[in-house]
Amino acid sequence: MIKGLKRLNGGVTAVPGVKAAGIHCGIKKKGLDLALILCERDATAAGVFTSNQVQAAPVRFSRQQIHSGKIRAIVANSGNANACTGLQGDRDARKMAEATASNLGIAAERVLVASTGVIGKRLPMKCILTATPSLVKELRRNGGKKAAEAIMTTDSWPKLSALRWESAGDSVTIGGIAKGSGMIRPQMATMLCFLATDAYARPAVLQKILRETVENSFNRITVDGDTSTNDCVFLLATGEKGDAPEIAERNSFGRQFKEALLEVCLDLAKMIVRDGEGATKFLEVNVRGTPSDAEAKMVGMAIANSPLVKTALFGEDPNWGRILAAAGNAGVRFNPDRVDLSIGKFYLIRQGEPLPPSQEAKAQKLMRNRNIEVHIHLHHGSGEAVVWASDLSTEYVRINASYRS
Amino acid sequence: MIKGLKRLNGGVTAVPGVKAAGIHCGIKKKGLDLALILCERDATAAGVFTSNQVQAAPVRFSRQQIHSGKIRAIVANSGNANACTGLQGDRDARKMAEATASNLGIAAERVLVASTGVIGKRLPMKCILTATPSLVKELRRNGGKKAAEAIMTTDSWPKLSALRWESAGDSVTIGGIAKGSGMIRPQMATMLCFLATDAYARPAVLQKILRETVENSFNRITVDGDTSTNDCVFLLATGEKGDAPEIAERNSFGRQFKEALLEVCLDLAKMIVRDGEGATKFLEVNVRGTPSDAEAKMVGMAIANSPLVKTALFGEDPNWGRILAAAGNAGVRFNPDRVDLSIGKFYLIRQGEPLPPSQEAKAQKLMRNRNIEVHIHLHHGSGEAVVWASDLSTEYVRINASYRS
Repeated sequence: MIKGLKRLNGGVTAVPGVKAAGIHCGIKKKGLDLALILCERDATAAGVFTSNQVQAAPVRFSRQQIHSGKIRAIVANSGNANACTGLQGDRDARKMAEATASNLGIAAERVLVASTGVIGKRLPMKCILTATPSLVKELRRNGGKKAAEAIMTTDSWPKLSALRWESAGDSVTIGGIAKGSGMIRPQMATMLCFLATDAYARPAVLQKILRETVENSFNRITVDGDTSTNDCVFLLATGEKGDAPEIAERNSFGRQFKEALLEVCLDLAKMIVRDGEGATKFLEVNVRGTPSDAEAKMVGMAIANSPLVKTALFGEDPNWGRILAAAGNAGVRFNPDRVDLSIGKFYLIRQGEPLPPSQEAKAQKLMRNRNIEVHIHLHHGSGEAVVWASDLSTEYVRINASYRS
Repeated sequence: MIKGLKRLNGGVTAVPGVKAAGIHCGIKKKGLDLALILCERDATAAGVFTSNQVQAAPVRFSRQQIHSGKIRAIVANSGNANACTGLQGDRDARKMAEATASNLGIAAERVLVASTGVIGKRLPMKCILTATPSLVKELRRNGGKKAAEAIMTTDSWPKLSALRWESAGDSVTIGGIAKGSGMIRPQMATMLCFLATDAYARPAVLQKILRETVENSFNRITVDGDTSTNDCVFLLATGEKGDAPEIAERNSFGRQFKEALLEVCLDLAKMIVRDGEGATKFLEVNVRGTPSDAEAKMVGMAIANSPLVKTALFGEDPNWGRILAAAGNAGVRFNPDRVDLSIGKFYLIRQGEPLPPSQEAKAQKLMRNRNIEVHIHLHHGSGEAVVWASDLSTEYVRINASYRS
């Protein structure tokens, strides 16, 4: 643990030198739908993008922008994902960056674009272009919350996280905002998350740290097991703190930075699960005893994605049989006769043998809680992983059956 | 197509020399819950079992029985899956076979066992043992329907299929019964299906034919993407038609047999989808243009398993963007700019470009039908596959949230 680590309000704008804004431009019928984040100086940027073969126009565009060098701003809209929109979509993503850049008086190469919402519909560019001047005027040092609101789709609350700590007598900050809340599943595909820090790192180092951190945070959550076309995590390192050490992978500042970044990302990732579409429960699956950590994650995700586990969770049923059956579908070999399984502190299976129904009655009570922990030990190696998931409720189906109407 | 192929009633008992019974023994509160199928003579047997690492006691037991030689009878119960029941479960499965055998006056080695229902609860052996004599007395030449009813869990109707055709002047029959209807997903994991024929094949040939047929029928359907601990397909070949030719892989009778067996299995597989838990729609996904058939199946299953596609289907929303996004998650590489996609006969994407909203309005009307066809062409090879799926409804969640209560 980093000493003196402090939680801050404001998300991405908790970072010195970062402003943000969120306004309503008319893509959604109501609510904020256009967000802007601006760094006072050029930032090193890293990005992790959806693994879906079908990538939305802003994903294709921003991937190239990040490779091209320094970044100053991120412009993002909700209500329309600009995905599956063909060549017109590519032109629209570029135009969104250009309009933002010209209003900010910076080069278009310095702008990243992101979109989230309905897929397969052309982006209403007129709304966006008309609103861009007001968006720029709205930029504030405390605008993180409004920006977080403006990227929400079916999210029910904005998601912000920020941490500050002292390093070599100077303070360093990491802050971010994120949105969920359907099509949430790992392999980076998940959502939007915009992070900033006032520390400095070279692009390759920043990219490597971000990729590792995403793997251990956003890639360990699931709402519905679907992987979207739009999602991306951006991290901008402004180097505003010119006197702080450079982030390197092996120096002690680099280790501190990674630890704090993981904490911010885990914080946002768990918020996404808690606010998953229709979610009534927050499930933490702890897997141990697999040959590798990767296999532990596979077992955890098989449990977390099983519709039968997720509906049992919604029904407050401690259905450990479904949990074990889901583990058996992970594509990981194990001997069921050696498995231990518990819900909270109550063991339900030991060495493959189910325990008496009185144990289940105890676990039954735990199921009424919002937070449920499952522990499964396969006794087949030293791999381990934790994953987080929501339940599958009638409300999830209702939201997604009528999403476009 | 085989000439003169005729559909018959009765399912498994449409096959000469096969009797069946279904009774209520008390595992379920009401409804038939114990089934028996008996062949007049020893049959060659083949079996395909769940791919889940966690296999229920009757699966482990029947797998061994099939290897040991000839089979005369299948006893099966619903209401309790005898899964995740430890060593006691193994003893109970064996006892169920022994009681059946002794009441039939045959060797216990001749009996297969299957169970389906709640997992993680001990099988109520007293009900089963007390009822076994009555079960045997109930055996009838037209008992197929009662047996099909007795293996139902959340199924809403019994599933039977049978075909007869003439070969070399003599008639041959294949018949079967099956049950769904949650935890339905390929990789043989899916359901129970008991098939019989009066033709003869050597065990190894029968096993190979059954495995191929299952791959092309039951392994191409999905209700919820979950793979159960209990499921198995059994095929008994009695050779009752002593004068019919032996089934061999390459003779013309073998080809006829495979064709008819596939038709019976497809028939039952589609019934399982139509009667999937909470199903309101029947989706057929046709995939073409992948490097291999296996990859076409992967794309089809990614679409068919996507909760977002399935909820859109429930909501009668022709959300082709979600279909394309789901295809992009299949783990198969393709270029989205070349994809054609249609719902029914209405193209919505051609060469990666979305067509005007008027097309979508036409597809919208089709969505009100119960049967929906999706065609997707990736233009990246000559692989193809068809898969079938149900939608994801609020009723599915309701059923599975309260399954044990």
